[in-house]
Amino acid sequence: MNRDKGVTGPAGFRAAGVAAGIKANGALDFTLVVNDGPNNAAAGVFTTNKVKAAPVLWSQQVLKERKLKAVVLNSGGANACTGPEGFQDTHATAEKVAEVLECGAIEVAVCSTGLIGERLPMDKVLSGVDTAKASLDNTVEAGLNAATGVMTTDTRPKQSWKAHEQGWSIGGFVKGAGMLAPNMATMLSVITTDADVDKDTLDAALRKATSNTFDRLDVDGGTSTNDTVLVLASGASGIKPAGEDFEKLLTEVSADLVKQLQGDAEGVTKEISITVTGAATEAEAVHIGRIVAEDNLVKTALFGSDPNWGRIAMALGRAQAQIDPDQLSIVINGIRVMDKGTRGEDRSNADLSGRDIDIIIELALGQGAATILTTDLSHDYVEENSAYSS
Amino acid sequence: MNRDKGVTGPAGFRAAGVAAGIKANGALDFTLVVNDGPNNAAAGVFTTNKVKAAPVLWSQQVLKERKLKAVVLNSGGANACTGPEGFQDTHATAEKVAEVLECGAIEVAVCSTGLIGERLPMDKVLSGVDTAKASLDNTVEAGLNAATGVMTTDTRPKQSWKAHEQGWSIGGFVKGAGMLAPNMATMLSVITTDADVDKDTLDAALRKATSNTFDRLDVDGGTSTNDTVLVLASGASGIKPAGEDFEKLLTEVSADLVKQLQGDAEGVTKEISITVTGAATEAEAVHIGRIVAEDNLVKTALFGSDPNWGRIAMALGRAQAQIDPDQLSIVINGIRVMDKGTRGEDRSNADLSGRDIDIIIELALGQGAATILTTDLSHDYVEENSAYSS
Repeated sequence: MNRDKGVTGPAGFRAAGVAAGIKANGALDFTLVVNDGPNNAAAGVFTTNKVKAAPVLWSQQVLKERKLKAVVLNSGGANACTGPEGFQDTHATAEKVAEVLECGAIEVAVCSTGLIGERLPMDKVLSGVDTAKASLDNTVEAGLNAATGVMTTDTRPKQSWKAHEQGWSIGGFVKGAGMLAPNMATMLSVITTDADVDKDTLDAALRKATSNTFDRLDVDGGTSTNDTVLVLASGASGIKPAGEDFEKLLTEVSADLVKQLQGDAEGVTKEISITVTGAATEAEAVHIGRIVAEDNLVKTALFGSDPNWGRIAMALGRAQAQIDPDQLSIVINGIRVMDKGTRGEDRSNADLSGRDIDIIIELALGQGAATILTTDLSHDYVEENSAYSS
Repeated sequence: MNRDKGVTGPAGFRAAGVAAGIKANGALDFTLVVNDGPNNAAAGVFTTNKVKAAPVLWSQQVLKERKLKAVVLNSGGANACTGPEGFQDTHATAEKVAEVLECGAIEVAVCSTGLIGERLPMDKVLSGVDTAKASLDNTVEAGLNAATGVMTTDTRPKQSWKAHEQGWSIGGFVKGAGMLAPNMATMLSVITTDADVDKDTLDAALRKATSNTFDRLDVDGGTSTNDTVLVLASGASGIKPAGEDFEKLLTEVSADLVKQLQGDAEGVTKEISITVTGAATEAEAVHIGRIVAEDNLVKTALFGSDPNWGRIAMALGRAQAQIDPDQLSIVINGIRVMDKGTRGEDRSNADLSGRDIDIIIELALGQGAATILTTDLSHDYVEENSAYSS
């Protein structure tokens, strides 16, 4: 994977990231990604939160056509819980982009991230569209600026790009550091491809890829009001890949973006992988992995480098899933600390001093398996989230 | 409420709390409560966790008879995930108590709390029974020692006692500071009464009282492997109260014990009450209250005294419940910060600098209402739970 390129890696795309003045500190806060075609197929997945931000409501409507000319994104404000006025702001933003790009507003998706409950400074947003339009380019720099313009508590821009040997490629950026349990966090991602993929194939591939990547990261259980992943296909390579080839590469790029989200999560000191095997179903494996990933007693123990498997057993015992405590085994960094319902090897043999922690939970009931990525609960997490209004 | 008396407040009960040597530091770690009758009705509610400790499995069996002579409790070890051997340890403890009290093991409930996954030092447990038997008394001091013997990370013993004007009373103790979301945390409570209450009335009253008190405290979502609340009725007052009078006083004493759990929770700096009104059903109100209570972004914001209502809206939007975002209002310490789906009064008017925070979530859909008690997520919470193996 190449992390130096992103949305402008594939042919047929231009992007820009500019300082529109939404953020008081003058940082980049406004991003525009444009698909120059020849195709304009697109697909999107959105937050499952019942409280949805105005840009999510707008983009869900727009994506019904599965055609996009452009995506406009801002940091510095989520435009969530802002009522009908907030929705009008989103609409006006799309209209302005449509005007400068000479397309329809229905071809423009909108994404926002930042504090919930505040209106956006629309004068700055609208002039930002003009500035961004003037900066559009297909360069590596333009892609990096686009990835930077959406950052909130992220410490670094996060991009991924990979080419297929057939001559087409997939690239994208992602932002997100807290409120991060994408089911479909404010987690925003725009992915581009120059493959010639029709809209139905694109939609199916995106749903499959996100369900196995974005949907399996759970930092803090906080599915946001604004979570969005969009994929845009320009067809500029002129190559029509096989469906499974496209889905495979899209999953790889998505997984790499998710790995970067995990590594840059708020207060992270441990990158934790929780694999559940032998569950009754895959859905139960995912549910059990999430229950453990979200448990504060597990997360604080791991921050303390303590292989406290009893807390893992406690946490998963709360799952709405089939569990036989007498069949349950837990392996932490290769040490089988719990074996068939009771104490296994001495837990002090499990060395958790490093950054990576690998937990395997064996239920020994069925064939269901899944891996959930999460992070620990550290002092820095508490500090960032008690001091920063997001 | 009188917090100086507990299980020995009602007539017909003796108790003891001794140092059996289970804890290395020599603190009190072993408690015995004995019902001297004339009656021996009892009822219990237990953890809903699928991974249940040996003493829970034992006590659930014993309580089927709804008759108890005694309850024996230890701190310093949960006896959970200890396999058949752990269950035999519990059984042997009950047998030893039955021997010294000259009753049947079937009349002895057992409770344990401490680290999960370690066997108990049975020589110390068994000699502890003898020491405790020799210390049994009906004094205030004996009750206080009993309440102290079950403490783990608790900073203080927690008792409550109240007399009914008719001449009978209810008293009890509780322990618990983390892994605390009793649905039925290691949260242990023994409640006594000298009312003449039959076992069916006692059972019904306990279920009703706990569902409205213990089950509505949610510090960290951590329903433990060992949660237990037991109530024992001696009938020693000779007075048979009306069912509703008994249930009302039992609920009051339970609520006072729960308030003390909240106030002594690990790392607590804020005592937070979340009231949900206008839900479709009471069950949905409870579910929504719990989702908000368990949300780390909400908990860290409140630690920072930040009335960040957007995080509350985000958290509850994840609930599996009927929600209309446009009807949603949020009141924090008297300030209506969110009104019918959008920003209300300036949130800076909500002063959260004190210890008590009162949140009201108005759904405006139906008649369902519930209040959940929780605490904030502080640096001390992270410190205690990353440094202490519980």
